[in-house]
Amino acid sequence: MNDVKRRTESLEEHVVALCRGARAAAPILAQASTEAKNAALRAGAAALRHRTGDLLATNAGDIERAKAAGETAAFVDRLTLTAARIEAMAVGVEQVAELPDPVGETITEWTRPNGLRIAQVRVPLGVIGIIYESRPNVTADAAALCLKSGNAVVLRGGKEAFATSASIASILRDATGEVPPDAIMFIDTTDREAVRIMLRQAGLIDVIIPRGGEDLIRAITEGSRIPVIQHFSGICHVYVDRAADLAIAERICVNAKAQRPGVCNAMENLLVHRDVAPRFLPAVAQQLEAAGVELRGCPETRRLVPSAKPASDADWDTEYLDLILSVKVVDSLDDAIAFIRRHGSGLADAIVTTDTDVAERFTRAIDSAAVFVNASTRFTDGFEFGFGAEIGISTNRLHARGPMGLRELTTYKYVVRGTGQVRT
Amino acid sequence: MNDVKRRTESLEEHVVALCRGARAAAPILAQASTEAKNAALRAGAAALRHRTGDLLATNAGDIERAKAAGETAAFVDRLTLTAARIEAMAVGVEQVAELPDPVGETITEWTRPNGLRIAQVRVPLGVIGIIYESRPNVTADAAALCLKSGNAVVLRGGKEAFATSASIASILRDATGEVPPDAIMFIDTTDREAVRIMLRQAGLIDVIIPRGGEDLIRAITEGSRIPVIQHFSGICHVYVDRAADLAIAERICVNAKAQRPGVCNAMENLLVHRDVAPRFLPAVAQQLEAAGVELRGCPETRRLVPSAKPASDADWDTEYLDLILSVKVVDSLDDAIAFIRRHGSGLADAIVTTDTDVAERFTRAIDSAAVFVNASTRFTDGFEFGFGAEIGISTNRLHARGPMGLRELTTYKYVVRGTGQVRT
Repeated sequence: MNDVKRRTESLEEHVVALCRGARAAAPILAQASTEAKNAALRAGAAALRHRTGDLLATNAGDIERAKAAGETAAFVDRLTLTAARIEAMAVGVEQVAELPDPVGETITEWTRPNGLRIAQVRVPLGVIGIIYESRPNVTADAAALCLKSGNAVVLRGGKEAFATSASIASILRDATGEVPPDAIMFIDTTDREAVRIMLRQAGLIDVIIPRGGEDLIRAITEGSRIPVIQHFSGICHVYVDRAADLAIAERICVNAKAQRPGVCNAMENLLVHRDVAPRFLPAVAQQLEAAGVELRGCPETRRLVPSAKPASDADWDTEYLDLILSVKVVDSLDDAIAFIRRHGSGLADAIVTTDTDVAERFTRAIDSAAVFVNASTRFTDGFEFGFGAEIGISTNRLHARGPMGLRELTTYKYVVRGTGQVRT
Repeated sequence: MNDVKRRTESLEEHVVALCRGARAAAPILAQASTEAKNAALRAGAAALRHRTGDLLATNAGDIERAKAAGETAAFVDRLTLTAARIEAMAVGVEQVAELPDPVGETITEWTRPNGLRIAQVRVPLGVIGIIYESRPNVTADAAALCLKSGNAVVLRGGKEAFATSASIASILRDATGEVPPDAIMFIDTTDREAVRIMLRQAGLIDVIIPRGGEDLIRAITEGSRIPVIQHFSGICHVYVDRAADLAIAERICVNAKAQRPGVCNAMENLLVHRDVAPRFLPAVAQQLEAAGVELRGCPETRRLVPSAKPASDADWDTEYLDLILSVKVVDSLDDAIAFIRRHGSGLADAIVTTDTDVAERFTRAIDSAAVFVNASTRFTDGFEFGFGAEIGISTNRLHARGPMGLRELTTYKYVVRGTGQVRT
C-alpha cells in the first residue's frame, strides 16, 4: 500500500518516503476547494460502508491475535469493529464534510496609515503526524479532520489493531478523488523504530498529535524533534462556594463525577466552603454514594460524612478516572484557589456560586484551559463547545489550548496588499 | 542579585531557583492591573534614565573586555551604550506602557443551545525564557514586552554584554512597584551550562524565545525540552509579473534589496517574467547597481544585463544579508510559484502585478508568513504591521507566525458561564 516500493530500502528510507509523500501532497491539499475535500470525505464514508464485510473480516484477525496474546476483554472491545461501529465511523466522516471549512477564512484585517491592507488568513498547518493506540476508528476520524482542515496526515496506528487501521486508511486513500491520495499516509509497519524515525522528520511533519494514554504522550514528547500537542491528565475541581445554590451544586457534582468517570474532564477533587459544608456534604455524599462513588475526605469532611475514607496526601494529586472522589472543606475562596493552583492539572475547574464577584475572582485566578461557573466540567469537549468535531484536548499553552476542532488544526499567514508602498 | 542565595548551592540549584522565582511571580503578574504594569514600566524607564551614569560606567567595562578579547569594531558597537541609546531604551519601555493591554481581552464568545455562554479570553503564556546575544538593550526591550503581556521572564544575556545586561535587569527589578520583582529574572552567570539547565525546566518555563543568529537558534532548538519560537533565515523573493507596473516594480525591488540589506525581510532572489524582462531588467539593474548591489543572474538575465555575474546553484538558496541579489527570468506565474516553494524560506515573498487574478493565485499558492502584493517585503515587521512593538518574527507554523507583538505573547482560556447545566 501507500504506493511506495519497499523491496530493498531500509526502514528509515521507507518511513521517510511515506512522510515525503505527505509533504508533497500537502500544498495541493492546502489549495483544494471545499467541494473537492467534501467529495473525498463523502466518497470515503461510502467506501467504508461498501467495504463493511472486508473490514469485519480483517478486524476478526486483529481480534483473534489480541485474544491469543491474552489481552483483556475491555482491550479487545476497544479494537473490535461491528457493522454498527463501521456505520458510526462513516457517519462521523460525513459529519466532518458538513462542517464549515476553516481554510481561507479571514481572521482579522486592517489598513495601515500608508494604505497597506493587511489580512490575517487561516491556512493549514501542513503535515500532521497522528500516533494512536488501539482504537481503529481513530484512523478515519483523524484522517477526516486533517483532510477537511487541508492538512496531509501521517497515521501511525497501534499494533493490536494494525490490520484494521491499515485497511481503513487504504479504503480512504482509494476514495480521495481530486485530492491526492498521499494526503493520507499510513505507516505500514508495526516496527516501533518507525515511530522514532517519524519523530525525527521535523522538515516533513509540522506537528505530532498523540492520541492515547499519558505514557504514550510522555514517550513521544521525550523523543520528538517536532512540536507535540499534548493531552496530559485532568485533575478537575469543583468548588462549592458559601454562596452556592446547593441544588445546582449537587447536580453539578454528581454529573461531574459520576456521569462518565473514566474521562479527563470528570471531577477528581471536590472543595466545599466551610459555611455550607454541614448542609451540603451529607446530602451530596448520599447522592454520590448512591451513584457508586467512593468518598475520601479530609478530617472535616469525615466528621460530616462518616462513611468517607480518609484521604491521603497522594489522593489530592490523583486522576482516578474511576468512581472515587476526594473531598476537602476549605475556609475561603482564596483557599480554594490556592488548592486548585497547587493540585489542579490546568484542564478544567468549576465554581458553583450565586455571587458574581466571587465568580469573577475565580475565573480570573484559575488559569485552566476551561473555567466553569455553575456548570459541569464535563462540558470540556469539542462537540459540547460547538466545534462539531474534536481531534483532542490540548493541555499545552502554546498554539491551541483546550478542546481542538478544525480551526485549531490551522495556522495563519498575512496577505498584505499595496499599491507600490516601500519602506522608508 | 535576584535575591537568591548562592553560597553553597550548585549551578543547577541556582538556575532552577531563579526559574522557580519567575514561576511563582507569574500568576501574580498575570492578574496585575494594566495600571500596575504600566506604572512598573514607567518607573523602570525613569530609573534607566536616572542611572545613566552607572550604566555607562558598567558598559565601559564590557567594552574594554570585548576590545581586549579582540572583538571587531562592529561587534563592540553592538554592545556599546551611549546616553542617547539609554534614552532610546527608556523611551522604548515607555512606548510599551502606551500599548493596549492584551490580557483579559475577549477574543470571541458565543452561546450554546443549552444556554452555556462560552468566552475565549486572552491570558499570558506564563513564564518566557529569552536567550539573546550581545545587544544589552534586548534586556529592557524583552522585559518590557513580557511584563506588559503579563508574563514573567527569565533573561539570559550574552557574555560579552553580561555586566551591562545584568545592570539593566537589576534597575528594572528595583522599579517594579506593585508587580513582584521576580517577574524579571536574570541568569547571573555566564556559565554556558546555565543555558542547558534552563532549557530543561519545562515545568517552570513555558516557551523559549532566542534572539540572535541562526546558530544560536539551532543550538537552542536542539537542546530544549521547552517549545522554542524560532526565527530562521529569510530568503525572500520578489516576483515581477508580466502584468506588473514596472515603475512600481523598480521601486519595490530597490527598496526590498537595498534599503537595509542586512535584515531577514530583505529580498535575496528576484524573479522576472520573460515577457517583461527585456524592458525591466536593464533598467532595474542600473538602479540596483547604483545602490551598490552586485547582481548574480541566470543565463537569460546575463544576456540582458551583461554586468551580472553568473549565479551558481547555491546562490538561489543563500541568505546574503548583503548587497548581493540573485536574478532569474521565469516563463510563467507557475514557474515563479514553484521556484519560491523550492527556494523560499517561508518568511516573506512578494508579487508585483496589476492582474488581480494573478495576485489572487499567488497569494493562495505561496504559503509564507507574509505574502505581499505590490509592496516591499521590508514591511514584514511588528511596527510596520501596527503592533506597536515586536519581540521577534516567528518562522514557526505553530502558535505565532510572522511578526510577534504583545498578543502573540499570550494564550487563551475558555470561561464558561452556566445556570446549573450538566451533561447528559
